[in-house]
Amino acid sequence: MCFGSTSVESCAAGWKHISNRWVWKLHKEGKSLLKELQQLSKQYSNIKLLQLDVVCENSIKKVVKEVEEIVGDKGLNCLINNAGINVLASLEDVTAETMLTIYETNTVAQLMVTKAFLPLLRKAAQLSTGMGCHRAAIINMSSLAASMQLVQANEMFLKVYPYRIAKTALNMITRCLAADLKSDGILCISLHPGWVQTDMGGNMAPLQVQEAIPGILSVLDRLGEKENGSFLDWQGETLPW
Amino acid sequence: MCFGSTSVESCAAGWKHISNRWVWKLHKEGKSLLKELQQLSKQYSNIKLLQLDVVCENSIKKVVKEVEEIVGDKGLNCLINNAGINVLASLEDVTAETMLTIYETNTVAQLMVTKAFLPLLRKAAQLSTGMGCHRAAIINMSSLAASMQLVQANEMFLKVYPYRIAKTALNMITRCLAADLKSDGILCISLHPGWVQTDMGGNMAPLQVQEAIPGILSVLDRLGEKENGSFLDWQGETLPW
Repeated sequence: MCFGSTSVESCAAGWKHISNRWVWKLHKEGKSLLKELQQLSKQYSNIKLLQLDVVCENSIKKVVKEVEEIVGDKGLNCLINNAGINVLASLEDVTAETMLTIYETNTVAQLMVTKAFLPLLRKAAQLSTGMGCHRAAIINMSSLAASMQLVQANEMFLKVYPYRIAKTALNMITRCLAADLKSDGILCISLHPGWVQTDMGGNMAPLQVQEAIPGILSVLDRLGEKENGSFLDWQGETLPW
Repeated sequence: MCFGSTSVESCAAGWKHISNRWVWKLHKEGKSLLKELQQLSKQYSNIKLLQLDVVCENSIKKVVKEVEEIVGDKGLNCLINNAGINVLASLEDVTAETMLTIYETNTVAQLMVTKAFLPLLRKAAQLSTGMGCHRAAIINMSSLAASMQLVQANEMFLKVYPYRIAKTALNMITRCLAADLKSDGILCISLHPGWVQTDMGGNMAPLQVQEAIPGILSVLDRLGEKENGSFLDWQGETLPW
């Protein structure tokens, strides 16, 4: 089974790698982990690290070709769109430029990366039945901050206007893809990974990486047709739009 | 009472005018209506037409100053963010460029225009009590296409990826503004104006302009604290996020 996951360290550069486990560690410990990841990919031949600039069309094309060479006729079973950046911006601070930059990386890039990987996801889907990560799935990393229903309950998120607005838009992408790709047997969900102690989550986050990862993996394992197009948290609970 | 409404004929140019009634006609009959509007503003001294490029910071600043000169100490009671463009783009066709252009005009511009008008809205809010258009309100023109809950029921909207994704993001802006500006006494809602026979709506639209306008005006009249942060259609029915 072939998993792919995107991550970014900065707006314009990211890392794409097979295995969804290590992306969290990459976030947590930043660039120091790159070495560890490189060592891991040497140690385990099924872990491949590929560089991807998620907002660059040519970079996306290049990495799709590289993944195609790795997965061959099996296709790609699961694409985790995890790349994302954040900038603190309240109503007072928010600018058009920040809104566009965050949207480009956190929303548009997810759609463009997904589009580029569709042929490989469709290839995997043709080799199996049912719906889920065993066949073909797109996991968009969203956020609790993207829930419109819960805005008033989470006013602390008002300090991240561009981020939460872009993540809400990403949730709509999930809904559109789920409807559009259902007939291909490709499932799509939005996932709130929990507020995790990563570079982005900060030290105040209540969740450790080692708690969140098993939860997320367990949710991914359980995904089926019922969950297609839904917004789930790291424990599998449904979140309101 | 002072109403302001934005409209666009193209991506980079729009018209801002006092009175929310005529914006629909401007959409319906396009530039031919400009003459009519100009005549009306000559005939009725309380209808003012001001030119605004909603994606240009300087243009926004300029029009806010012009409105300030018109409304004086009364402030602005109601800002209708109606400017919006659409481009047909299915999953197959959608590009990063289209996604960003539509987001800039249909989402980011609404936030920037609103931010710029906040001092005038706050001024009006200070002169009254309760919540609603009689005091101070922001009406974001959204769309049924922005409802994530209803995606599967409206798969025809799948042909407008950038538009519906940007309008969903606009709905989140409504939610954030409603939470942020509540203490100022400024109400904010998202409004689905109905599928109306305008330039954008096309001939297949089931609603005539003359049906939609009274409905919308009646909804605006009834707005109160209960509706703050909600997503309503042109008849006042609540739509799911």
